[in-house]
Amino acid sequence: MLRLLLPITMAFSISVAHAQTSPDDSVTLRKLADEVLTHSTAYANLRILTKEVGGRLAGSPQMPKAEQWGYKALKAAGADTVYFQECMVPHWVRGEKEEVRIISKRRDFVPALQVLALGNSEGSGAAGVTAPVLEVSSFDDLEAKKNDVKGKVVFYNYHFNPTFIKTFHAYGDAFMYRATGASRAAKYGALAVIVRSMSHGANNFPHTGAMRYNDSFPRIPAVAIGLEDADRLSDRIKDDKDMKIYLHTSAKFLPDTIGHNVIAEIRGTEHPEEIITIGGHLDSWDVNEGAHDDGTGCVQSIEIIRAFKALGIRPKRTIRIVLFANEENGTRGANKYAEVAKATPAEHHIFALESDAGGFTPRGFSFTMPAEKKAKIISWKPLFLPYGLYDFEDEGGGTDVGALNEAVGTPMGELAPDSQRYFDLHHATNDVFEAVNKREMELGAFGMAGLVYMIDKYGL
Amino acid sequence: MLRLLLPITMAFSISVAHAQTSPDDSVTLRKLADEVLTHSTAYANLRILTKEVGGRLAGSPQMPKAEQWGYKALKAAGADTVYFQECMVPHWVRGEKEEVRIISKRRDFVPALQVLALGNSEGSGAAGVTAPVLEVSSFDDLEAKKNDVKGKVVFYNYHFNPTFIKTFHAYGDAFMYRATGASRAAKYGALAVIVRSMSHGANNFPHTGAMRYNDSFPRIPAVAIGLEDADRLSDRIKDDKDMKIYLHTSAKFLPDTIGHNVIAEIRGTEHPEEIITIGGHLDSWDVNEGAHDDGTGCVQSIEIIRAFKALGIRPKRTIRIVLFANEENGTRGANKYAEVAKATPAEHHIFALESDAGGFTPRGFSFTMPAEKKAKIISWKPLFLPYGLYDFEDEGGGTDVGALNEAVGTPMGELAPDSQRYFDLHHATNDVFEAVNKREMELGAFGMAGLVYMIDKYGL
Repeated sequence: MLRLLLPITMAFSISVAHAQTSPDDSVTLRKLADEVLTHSTAYANLRILTKEVGGRLAGSPQMPKAEQWGYKALKAAGADTVYFQECMVPHWVRGEKEEVRIISKRRDFVPALQVLALGNSEGSGAAGVTAPVLEVSSFDDLEAKKNDVKGKVVFYNYHFNPTFIKTFHAYGDAFMYRATGASRAAKYGALAVIVRSMSHGANNFPHTGAMRYNDSFPRIPAVAIGLEDADRLSDRIKDDKDMKIYLHTSAKFLPDTIGHNVIAEIRGTEHPEEIITIGGHLDSWDVNEGAHDDGTGCVQSIEIIRAFKALGIRPKRTIRIVLFANEENGTRGANKYAEVAKATPAEHHIFALESDAGGFTPRGFSFTMPAEKKAKIISWKPLFLPYGLYDFEDEGGGTDVGALNEAVGTPMGELAPDSQRYFDLHHATNDVFEAVNKREMELGAFGMAGLVYMIDKYGL
Repeated sequence: MLRLLLPITMAFSISVAHAQTSPDDSVTLRKLADEVLTHSTAYANLRILTKEVGGRLAGSPQMPKAEQWGYKALKAAGADTVYFQECMVPHWVRGEKEEVRIISKRRDFVPALQVLALGNSEGSGAAGVTAPVLEVSSFDDLEAKKNDVKGKVVFYNYHFNPTFIKTFHAYGDAFMYRATGASRAAKYGALAVIVRSMSHGANNFPHTGAMRYNDSFPRIPAVAIGLEDADRLSDRIKDDKDMKIYLHTSAKFLPDTIGHNVIAEIRGTEHPEEIITIGGHLDSWDVNEGAHDDGTGCVQSIEIIRAFKALGIRPKRTIRIVLFANEENGTRGANKYAEVAKATPAEHHIFALESDAGGFTPRGFSFTMPAEKKAKIISWKPLFLPYGLYDFEDEGGGTDVGALNEAVGTPMGELAPDSQRYFDLHHATNDVFEAVNKREMELGAFGMAGLVYMIDKYGL
């Protein structure tokens, strides 16, 4: 019921705070929207990043190519300065073989499951794992069946909940199965785990993503399977009591290597020491083009500089775009940026904005900051409503700016695009350029540019 | 600036009118959402309509198949009664040949343009049209060049305006070139017209759609071309002064034939004579699967009956689903429905709702009705906000319920989905099942069901 009261509360704060803006603001926002929707280079930039660089996991050969792409794109957008910020990044590789098969005494043909090893997982060894499978519907179910786990492959068949309207809530509900399921099963003697993908997609794409081991237990292999295969496997388990799983993965870590955040600035004319950080992450999973995750966040951030320059907007504060390294399986880039910010007291980080929820049509922003600062931003909401951005109430902020928030308390926000399609392709092979709609992404870039414009103008 | 003030106005009406609802309403809407997001048959229904029936223009062999599909789907959803309402429909056929080529004295290879004849247009005759081309950027430009038109093919290269945030405004701005461009050029002696498609799409699909002749002038052939071809043609015209266009189309009208609105009801328990009409149109263009236009509107409407039945909701008023015939090139189904409504004074049509703007994630509704009725609906907005429906302010209503509104003054509304992707595929060959996202469409169905529930409960 709380949510139902929100519009009324919001409206009062709007009417109270409305005087803080100027009629020029709506004109400037309109110009920003027209500029982005007419002349944006974001889509063209995204095409190069996704099609010419491609998947760009930390440590991969594509990583330095992506860094060079970012440097050039930020220069071309008109940044005053562009530079690299070095950080060590993990170097996980998927390896040459991923295979999961149902082994049955029956003579029927059973196609291999479509699988992706989970990021940061260890391989099975050359012999692979061949073992009976135990399906569990949840961690509670695992605990109930813990005496049955030893020597088995555990299959987490936890379903993505379709009733959450904002699909990130379904992800929040389910992702621990991917992140911690291996060690929780290894605790009871499991030999490997198979995880139902975190997706609503009406398809069979497996969705990878980071996991982490609890080093109290053996590091067993872990894979994701698609929804159709998960249902098929579950049916088979009920029907074929003697079946086994053959699972082979080749994933492993190589030594850490050097990566970079790519950073660009427009220096503030009045308060150059006050920094507004805006960014997305430059890395992506290895199995796709990283279009929505997070190519769009990168090109939207770059577009802010281009649009400001095109319109002759000279910010009072320093606008700093950061293309973060290694968000997907380490957050090392964000940690480095936060560490440097903390060690640089002359810099005052007044706000940080991230776009890492897909390049879909925007609905608003989430924010984490003190109430009076949030009220100030919410007072600007009427300026954004004509562009379809109305939802400013949720707590939030992305992983990368989260590190800065944690280190130096910077107020943070994240673009909140419509989330219905995100988990159809998140961390799956279908996260490609063609899945991005030009205008939807551009409207997100406009929303970010507009918010940055307002925060630069009025402070926070 | 008016729009900027709206949130405040809205909020006052919310706080004033909020007492008109009951706490049960939010519970029922939540149940409706859960039911639709978990058990909807809309996507499965859509698959059959698009993949097994396919394109279903009035008069085509697919039209009666679509009517049978609708009958069965409405029965399966649990309607009390399902029946056909006969109406005569036009029978336009595209014919066997559509070809437009650049004819040049140069010896370079010029691929044929990708074209679709405009709906309701006449063919070129067997010889086709071979003539010089005159590009005009607008009707004003046509008037300025009117002495130059005679004996030419006129190429309307009017650009879809990217700066309208709601893309239907761009369509409203541009569609007269498709609808009336042929006769306006024929007035000055043009032999044929080529129209730049009404689209933002970053592709080359031509977009057909209805045109109409002004019978004061010759009925010249008319085709649409895609955006890339339009740019290519425009470049060529500037560069190759002697080029001609060869244009051949085979379109024609056959005699009118019999079609049907497919109608289903749940009879009201208290006020059966009060009718709430909900619908989409069953016909589509011949060149695609009519997925977003308007398969989704049909299956969303059908889903309302299924969800009401599943939850045991017994409406007080009569809920009537209408799958309208022939919206695309005649509106005969809607006209028949309105005519019968007018001739049946015992029926009181209190509201009519349409879904014909695509099966994309919903943002609200548009309404056309007296201010006090609209204020009543707007007072319910907080109930819909948790589901992402916030935009209730625009004037609107679809073509089909528009006929009822005109005939008997019925208050009307239309689902307002996010419009960014619609004109990428509207009336083009890429409007197929795969372009529909299951959850996005389901959220629209929920929004419609919720609004119908509220209007049935509280009247209008």
